[in-house]
Amino acid sequence: MLPSTERLLLGPGPSLIAPRVMRALGAPMLSHLDPDFVVIMDDLRARLERICRAPEGSFAFAMSGTGTSGMEVAVSNLVQPGTRVLSIVSGYFGDRLAQMSVRYGGEVEKVAVDWGRAVDPDAVRTMLGKTRAEVVTVVHAETSTGVLNPLEAIATVAREHDALVLVDAVTSLGGHPLDADGWGLDAVYSCSQKCLGSPSGLSPVLFGPLALERLVPCRGFYFDLELLEDYWLKRKYHHTMSASLIYALSEALTIVEEEGLEARWARHERHHRAFAAGLEAMGLSLLPPEGERLWTLNAIRVPEGIDDAAVRKHLLTKHNMEIGAGLGPLAGKIFRVGLMGASSTPELVTACLTALEDALAAQGFRAPAGAGAAAATAALA
Amino acid sequence: MLPSTERLLLGPGPSLIAPRVMRALGAPMLSHLDPDFVVIMDDLRARLERICRAPEGSFAFAMSGTGTSGMEVAVSNLVQPGTRVLSIVSGYFGDRLAQMSVRYGGEVEKVAVDWGRAVDPDAVRTMLGKTRAEVVTVVHAETSTGVLNPLEAIATVAREHDALVLVDAVTSLGGHPLDADGWGLDAVYSCSQKCLGSPSGLSPVLFGPLALERLVPCRGFYFDLELLEDYWLKRKYHHTMSASLIYALSEALTIVEEEGLEARWARHERHHRAFAAGLEAMGLSLLPPEGERLWTLNAIRVPEGIDDAAVRKHLLTKHNMEIGAGLGPLAGKIFRVGLMGASSTPELVTACLTALEDALAAQGFRAPAGAGAAAATAALA
Repeated sequence: MLPSTERLLLGPGPSLIAPRVMRALGAPMLSHLDPDFVVIMDDLRARLERICRAPEGSFAFAMSGTGTSGMEVAVSNLVQPGTRVLSIVSGYFGDRLAQMSVRYGGEVEKVAVDWGRAVDPDAVRTMLGKTRAEVVTVVHAETSTGVLNPLEAIATVAREHDALVLVDAVTSLGGHPLDADGWGLDAVYSCSQKCLGSPSGLSPVLFGPLALERLVPCRGFYFDLELLEDYWLKRKYHHTMSASLIYALSEALTIVEEEGLEARWARHERHHRAFAAGLEAMGLSLLPPEGERLWTLNAIRVPEGIDDAAVRKHLLTKHNMEIGAGLGPLAGKIFRVGLMGASSTPELVTACLTALEDALAAQGFRAPAGAGAAAATAALA
Repeated sequence: MLPSTERLLLGPGPSLIAPRVMRALGAPMLSHLDPDFVVIMDDLRARLERICRAPEGSFAFAMSGTGTSGMEVAVSNLVQPGTRVLSIVSGYFGDRLAQMSVRYGGEVEKVAVDWGRAVDPDAVRTMLGKTRAEVVTVVHAETSTGVLNPLEAIATVAREHDALVLVDAVTSLGGHPLDADGWGLDAVYSCSQKCLGSPSGLSPVLFGPLALERLVPCRGFYFDLELLEDYWLKRKYHHTMSASLIYALSEALTIVEEEGLEARWARHERHHRAFAAGLEAMGLSLLPPEGERLWTLNAIRVPEGIDDAAVRKHLLTKHNMEIGAGLGPLAGKIFRVGLMGASSTPELVTACLTALEDALAAQGFRAPAGAGAAAATAALA
């Protein structure tokens, strides 16, 4: 069975995919140890290192699985029974990192942050002083709340206490500035289907030199970093990588580098700001305060009395447009609109505002006609 | 970077992929919880159940990862510290199953079998009587040796001792008869890129009703079957499935069912027999004895004094044809020729024999000119 339609993907991911990337996906199959494929693997590693701004002595690769598999690679190779972990929990994915660390035997303490707010690095400093954690887990861009955590400041605090910084960059890599070398990030994982603009199924993973020094014995096999290093670096068979997904990610990263990281970040910022201006003109508000907002994912408060599911259904059925719902405690309370990768365009900003105006009107929420698109257009000018 | 060529894939996998499947791979992206996608997921589950001949009350799904990820799903949800496991080790993948069971805390005993031979079910019976194992792990089609293990008989023995049967069907599903219901198989995993004819990156997994009753707490998160069931059955978010790979697998399974399972098995058998006749006419021999040979993967002894790597390189560079090398103790001793899925055709049987004749001749091994292809053609007639 195949899809009946081509959606406008403005949810929390997957994002739209450039035609070049789709064509790469369909390139001829090669086996995982073919001499041609090995060259593609090396090229991909180098691209990932550049895009993460990896320090000398890092190991970057693409895990054969989704972003959650990358999370588990990071946790299962750095947390073992007894490892003291400090998990910053400011949303669903921060909580998932804490849960996973517990599963791997970590003694997990949390810095709990209200959903919708960024963590205060001073709170992290205080807790680190108390817990002497060896690993700090943090979500850079919290997909569930639309909040950007101050990663550089957190990493600085962690380094003061000689703790490793384990970073979820699923909704930031390729959309927000991230500098593993400059900021001192030790382990970073992301996904392929959001700001990087490829199909899901691969997770870019980076281990910096300090993390590589402090690996713990991995209990699993699929996620064992030593086996993965042997595969990527020494061509020792571990699993049969999906060449199709590797081609697509490779092409997507080529596009990222052609655009330039700074230009790409600026594009995500510009379209977010235009979208936010449009929302404001429509009488809508974002959950996070100014200065803590993601450029890649907009968490919009559902107006009082409006049924969020009806709005999303209207968008899907009348406008063929997908946006996301709230997760956990935010279910029914926010919409999540992703403007990531190929989905971050001026046309989609205004199209989404216009469709949202229509869908909200159908539920009884009347924004001034055309105000959203007009404000966004003005902001883009 | 993209591949420079379209190889004739006759190694241990990936196999060639039908154009229909490649086109499905490029179908428009849908998100993992899109109403359209959910229908595709349900259809895929039903197809996997039919292709595995699953008993009532099974749970079949596609794990977002390669065959090795499927192996880890099976092991990590059925083996916990203290679980008594009997692992049949007749090759590289049987050994990997044993290793993985140890990683998950299993008390693993092995039935060791010479590489190149099938296990004797009586040896399994004896060991089961001694060890009272709760789980028996077995590789149906041992990719490293080209051997078919007598799965039905092994499952019968395991059932006599009330042990669960955990089956690696990576190189058999879709190429050799497999009947989870009729034979009493409790957990089965496979891959997408061999006999099923899709790109790698997904692992079909089946848990039968008894296995579902005897789940152990899974230490991991990505492989936790309860979370995976909640995702596939209750749409509770777990990870962002790769829609592209799901489309391709769905199309590949459609082709399997259009051909018919019995017809497909017969095709694999017919082409294997023709290929084996050709090899014999060329003075080459297969590692496993008659009756223990896979139809899907042919383990050919490297003739005395021949450099296997030079032969494989000749095939790759002069004929654009990939075949596999030996693994572990069989490195340098066998070639592995896969005739699986879309790679199992009369044309590729004769093309491979002809190319092999040329490549071996370049290394000083002279087979009677055209004898291989002629014998295969006669066998196919």
